[in-house]
Amino acid sequence: MALMSTDLLYAGEGPRFGDICAAAPSLRWLQSAAAGLDVPLYRPLLKPGVRITASHENTISIAEYVLGAVLRAYQQPERFADAQRRHAWEHHEFEELMGTTWIVVGFGAIGRAVAQRARAFGARVIGVRRSAGTEPGADELIAPDALIARIGEADVVVLARPGDPQGRAVLDAEVLAAMKPGSTLVNVARGSLIDVDALLRGLSRSQPATAILDAFDPEPLEADSPLWDHPGVIISPHASAGGLGRHERIARLFITNLSRLVAGEPLPDEIALEDLPVVGRPPAQFQASR
Amino acid sequence: MALMSTDLLYAGEGPRFGDICAAAPSLRWLQSAAAGLDVPLYRPLLKPGVRITASHENTISIAEYVLGAVLRAYQQPERFADAQRRHAWEHHEFEELMGTTWIVVGFGAIGRAVAQRARAFGARVIGVRRSAGTEPGADELIAPDALIARIGEADVVVLARPGDPQGRAVLDAEVLAAMKPGSTLVNVARGSLIDVDALLRGLSRSQPATAILDAFDPEPLEADSPLWDHPGVIISPHASAGGLGRHERIARLFITNLSRLVAGEPLPDEIALEDLPVVGRPPAQFQASR
Repeated sequence: MALMSTDLLYAGEGPRFGDICAAAPSLRWLQSAAAGLDVPLYRPLLKPGVRITASHENTISIAEYVLGAVLRAYQQPERFADAQRRHAWEHHEFEELMGTTWIVVGFGAIGRAVAQRARAFGARVIGVRRSAGTEPGADELIAPDALIARIGEADVVVLARPGDPQGRAVLDAEVLAAMKPGSTLVNVARGSLIDVDALLRGLSRSQPATAILDAFDPEPLEADSPLWDHPGVIISPHASAGGLGRHERIARLFITNLSRLVAGEPLPDEIALEDLPVVGRPPAQFQASR
Repeated sequence: MALMSTDLLYAGEGPRFGDICAAAPSLRWLQSAAAGLDVPLYRPLLKPGVRITASHENTISIAEYVLGAVLRAYQQPERFADAQRRHAWEHHEFEELMGTTWIVVGFGAIGRAVAQRARAFGARVIGVRRSAGTEPGADELIAPDALIARIGEADVVVLARPGDPQGRAVLDAEVLAAMKPGSTLVNVARGSLIDVDALLRGLSRSQPATAILDAFDPEPLEADSPLWDHPGVIISPHASAGGLGRHERIARLFITNLSRLVAGEPLPDEIALEDLPVVGRPPAQFQASR
């Protein structure tokens, strides 16, 4: 049994821990702290006799991060902080979430958790999901091919889905050109979901005006990327899963799933080989695995 | 008919506009954009034949500000911003709202709006309200005299009530000494609700660790106040009502209440003379009226 914790991934030790697991003849089960196992790290571990389970224990952190980041972009508290340093009493008005429209691309556990919080602020949430059906957590659910027709309604677009198996960008030049001017983009998923060159062109026409990016391809983001210094780009180092509550949540999940394993019960969120990508990526990206 | 907008108050023009209103012989009704008319500005205007109504149209702004400010204190995004300036890939973990306990002192429109949003993040909310009763928007309601016994449970304490008619601080040395170490205090109400000397002593023992202050006594905050440079204090210039959506909301309310006035219908949130304080304050504080 092994636990691939977020800490190992954050510390860049994912690949080394993966090597150890792959070399361990007795490994029967690996619990990952990550929700998205669509990075090459996991594939070599999934051998006959070895089971891998994903986790949704980072969901809460990520949803809180998204709301915190959008509220910050809307309220610009750094302007108050700057005035405070100067002992200056300077007002500024700010954007409100009330009445905004959000499109959440990928309506799994993370998308739903983001939607629940955004809706408490009076936002309308449109979820984008492959499978049809209704969903009480969204005001509307649409299919991925409807995104380009509907994205112009969104004040906030949140990417919360796995990477495309073929590595295609969901936000390509065409979709970016359909975004609402002045809108905000949040990526807490995979860097490969965005065509970065097209995003830079979009930012120059405020489509979107602000890009809150927590995922890049590759990771860490290259030191010479133009994203770092762009005034419309807010960068965090694949850190949105970093809420302190996750430690206890993942430990509890590990114990629960261990009991299930021992009892021969089904393991929730177990991953199959066909869920995992075939192609490799530079080791640096493994650090980003959720 | 007159509309005392937040903009007039923000611009420090409240007193001058008040003088104009007081001098206007034909004034029949003043609509204030503020919820709390417990500042001396309004008293001289409330003469026979003149009616004054308060508004809850700033509620949304203030509730969004509170959540934005607490999430920022919990997530410390300025550390990511600093790393971004250095093109550095530096993680940090952050506190989560999930599982926190909030005590909201004053459970009117603003308190309820704060509670609704905090609960969507998985927070437990205890409201403090003079009148007993139940309230679906709070997990529990307590009376003001229970605050000192219960405040130690709160990770976040939000002040959202009018000033005490006698000017007493609700957060005095005794109550501050009962706060939970490491907790966060938010004041979006009246500066007079906090004993600032006792707060500074409290901050030195992390009771609270962080004070998010949007209201002061007097206002503007004196340039030599020790609050400005305290590392645990986050200052905004009575700006939490500054959401852009309020302009349309207050205009709609003005039109609705004007129709009611013309039709002889009752005016909601009409203020009586006994609701208004007798004592005067320096004119600078009028700027702070909500």
